[in-house]
Amino acid sequence: MIDGRTPLAVRFDGTREEAEQYDRADPLGFLRERFAHPDPDLIYLDGNSLGRLPVDTPDFLADVVRNGWGRGLIRSWNDWIDWGRRIGDRLAEHVLGAGPGEVALSDSTTVNLYKLAWAALDLAPDRRTLVVDADDFPTDRYVAQGLARQRGLALRTVHSDIDRGIDLDRLRAVLDDDVALVVLSHVAYRSGALADMAAINRMAHEVGALVLWDLSHAAGAVPVRLTEDGADLAVGCTYKYLNGGPGSPAFLYVRRSLQPRLRQPIQGWFGQRDQFAMGAEFDPIGTIDRFLAGTPPMLSTAALVPALDLVEEAGIDRLRAKGRLLGELTADLAARWLEPLGFRLASPEEPDRRGSHLTLWHPDAWRICRALAEEAGVVCDYREPDRLRIGPSPAYTRFTDVWDALDRTRTLVADGRHTRCSREKARIT
Amino acid sequence: MIDGRTPLAVRFDGTREEAEQYDRADPLGFLRERFAHPDPDLIYLDGNSLGRLPVDTPDFLADVVRNGWGRGLIRSWNDWIDWGRRIGDRLAEHVLGAGPGEVALSDSTTVNLYKLAWAALDLAPDRRTLVVDADDFPTDRYVAQGLARQRGLALRTVHSDIDRGIDLDRLRAVLDDDVALVVLSHVAYRSGALADMAAINRMAHEVGALVLWDLSHAAGAVPVRLTEDGADLAVGCTYKYLNGGPGSPAFLYVRRSLQPRLRQPIQGWFGQRDQFAMGAEFDPIGTIDRFLAGTPPMLSTAALVPALDLVEEAGIDRLRAKGRLLGELTADLAARWLEPLGFRLASPEEPDRRGSHLTLWHPDAWRICRALAEEAGVVCDYREPDRLRIGPSPAYTRFTDVWDALDRTRTLVADGRHTRCSREKARIT
Repeated sequence: MIDGRTPLAVRFDGTREEAEQYDRADPLGFLRERFAHPDPDLIYLDGNSLGRLPVDTPDFLADVVRNGWGRGLIRSWNDWIDWGRRIGDRLAEHVLGAGPGEVALSDSTTVNLYKLAWAALDLAPDRRTLVVDADDFPTDRYVAQGLARQRGLALRTVHSDIDRGIDLDRLRAVLDDDVALVVLSHVAYRSGALADMAAINRMAHEVGALVLWDLSHAAGAVPVRLTEDGADLAVGCTYKYLNGGPGSPAFLYVRRSLQPRLRQPIQGWFGQRDQFAMGAEFDPIGTIDRFLAGTPPMLSTAALVPALDLVEEAGIDRLRAKGRLLGELTADLAARWLEPLGFRLASPEEPDRRGSHLTLWHPDAWRICRALAEEAGVVCDYREPDRLRIGPSPAYTRFTDVWDALDRTRTLVADGRHTRCSREKARIT
Repeated sequence: MIDGRTPLAVRFDGTREEAEQYDRADPLGFLRERFAHPDPDLIYLDGNSLGRLPVDTPDFLADVVRNGWGRGLIRSWNDWIDWGRRIGDRLAEHVLGAGPGEVALSDSTTVNLYKLAWAALDLAPDRRTLVVDADDFPTDRYVAQGLARQRGLALRTVHSDIDRGIDLDRLRAVLDDDVALVVLSHVAYRSGALADMAAINRMAHEVGALVLWDLSHAAGAVPVRLTEDGADLAVGCTYKYLNGGPGSPAFLYVRRSLQPRLRQPIQGWFGQRDQFAMGAEFDPIGTIDRFLAGTPPMLSTAALVPALDLVEEAGIDRLRAKGRLLGELTADLAARWLEPLGFRLASPEEPDRRGSHLTLWHPDAWRICRALAEEAGVVCDYREPDRLRIGPSPAYTRFTDVWDALDRTRTLVADGRHTRCSREKARIT
């Protein structure tokens, strides 16, 4: 029923019994118990910000701490030195649709954006324009602004629709042969709008530009097909749908044919051909490791290992199928129950045009978000302006969780309980 | 006896009984049991590469994993967001001799070097020269080479003595009013030579240049006095003498008066004034946080907390006093037992001119290092060319550990057992 071949026009009847039926039929239902649920009554719909803790992670990490660090001490680096590469290859194969040796684990998404964008700009010194999306995640825009300033480039902006994402015609209108690089997100951080990666890559390549994709909200939520879609460059985080833990290291992807031609700006010893010879001149290694910089945070890296086991066991196609259906149920119940209360969908209506989160607009979204967390046991998050973002991660969210969360929301808002919360945005979440 | 006021001309008699006396009198002896020693027979003299695991770290980290991540989920970021700043202030006060708001935890040493060097070079656009030490740690040299290439600067090299460190006359000879920035290490990674930070800062300031110090081998080993010594900029790692665990986040220091004038190149959302407003334009916050970039690795950050507790309890002056004495004992026994076997000291002879590690030269150092680890239960490390680096971290190393390690070394080398090891440098350590 929900095996990836399900027709999309599912008709819900809006009852909790129906949600229970979906849970019983869920081929990924077994995964829920592989994650920690210390507060069984809490409904967590923010897996798009920080994924839940896999049950196996604490013991795995404790072993790395006690045996790897405590017992192995410096000798463990003989093994750790390869973890980033091994994890990169796993991400490439199971999550990103890339080849071996095309993905590395490194730094933060922000630093990786900077490194790869810089390297790409060096490839086309005669092109003087960098294209960004005015609606992209802040760090992507800020990094691009910095690069444009540092390198004296023009920054050209495509104005995506805040609810519906990248408009191909608007994007085409800003592309010409002065554009060196386009920076875009595959899944929009706020609306969840899913970009047509293949079409956009083709469009950019037609004018001779490269595209750098931010996959932070896509990796683990939708099948990413970097090779098939002709992608040049990509970065992304691992703490959302990949459940790697708070601030787990980011990844970067460079198409193999581009690797020898790109040279990143932060020439650190982890990018050196013969790292421990410690030679006089920097000589970048001929592999994806040339895009590394300094010593990686191994404890935060280690937490990714059991997390990736789960993603691989589930399979990205099953995760996507369930995530889409969870989104459809969310949208259906929101239309049924929440539109009469002043909400509207602030995401694409078509399930195929969304990632695994969606957003609802409401003029009092901040206070509703606070009240849901403080009084109703529902954690989702708020995004400027006036938006409630709902991310039911397919790995551990039940259909009844979505039903209950929207049911609690309608009751809370109908009763006006959110109006007792402060309007002051003093907290992060 | 070893309280920091001890005259330096300690005379050892070379007996194990004497080392035992020092252990009994050691005011930091209590610290040893605060670190894990799963192999009691292993003598670990590589705390200058990766510090030992504090006993409290596994439980502290497990709590952050199970409760912070597993139970608190995204809500824990309300607290975590301040950890880097709080740890930065602790480092400033107890380790680095800096003021509150002058130190932040961020990225790797490599990335921080890049960020601060870039920012400093922007301050003096008319100066076209960057000075580095030919003998500095590779990542420092490589980052500087990259910056020189990217910005079209001249890279001027001061040739420090491989054994004795920075020569002030040689440094003076390469300084003039074309120099924008000097990048140097406070304690040399190989010889342990300790630079005269105050004198060098003065010398650079006289020609109008700034100095960026790498404190990786100094922090936690010697009292660093950034404010008192007139330092401009500094970076460093936390996994050596600070025992933060493999790849724990690095720190960066920017003198408060310089902060508003410096703008780092990687404009990430953690450097933004109102991070969660997610506004259109990058507007760097007016604090040390403007030098942050992306989301920090919280598990690797968390491990620093119990580690810093120990450093603060010990006090940097007591750590330094003991570290110096451990170094003196090492040098004394090496002169007594190892010089006749072909070793020589490849570090400054004066204890005040060394950090807490020192280096011995031997033509067969690689095989001796391997044999010590594989057959004699002594872990130190090898550094090119032909050097055995010995780092008896004062937090957990006993005087008898040093005595036993050097005793095992003399026996092993006298018996020629190292000659059975391969000459091939296939391993990292």
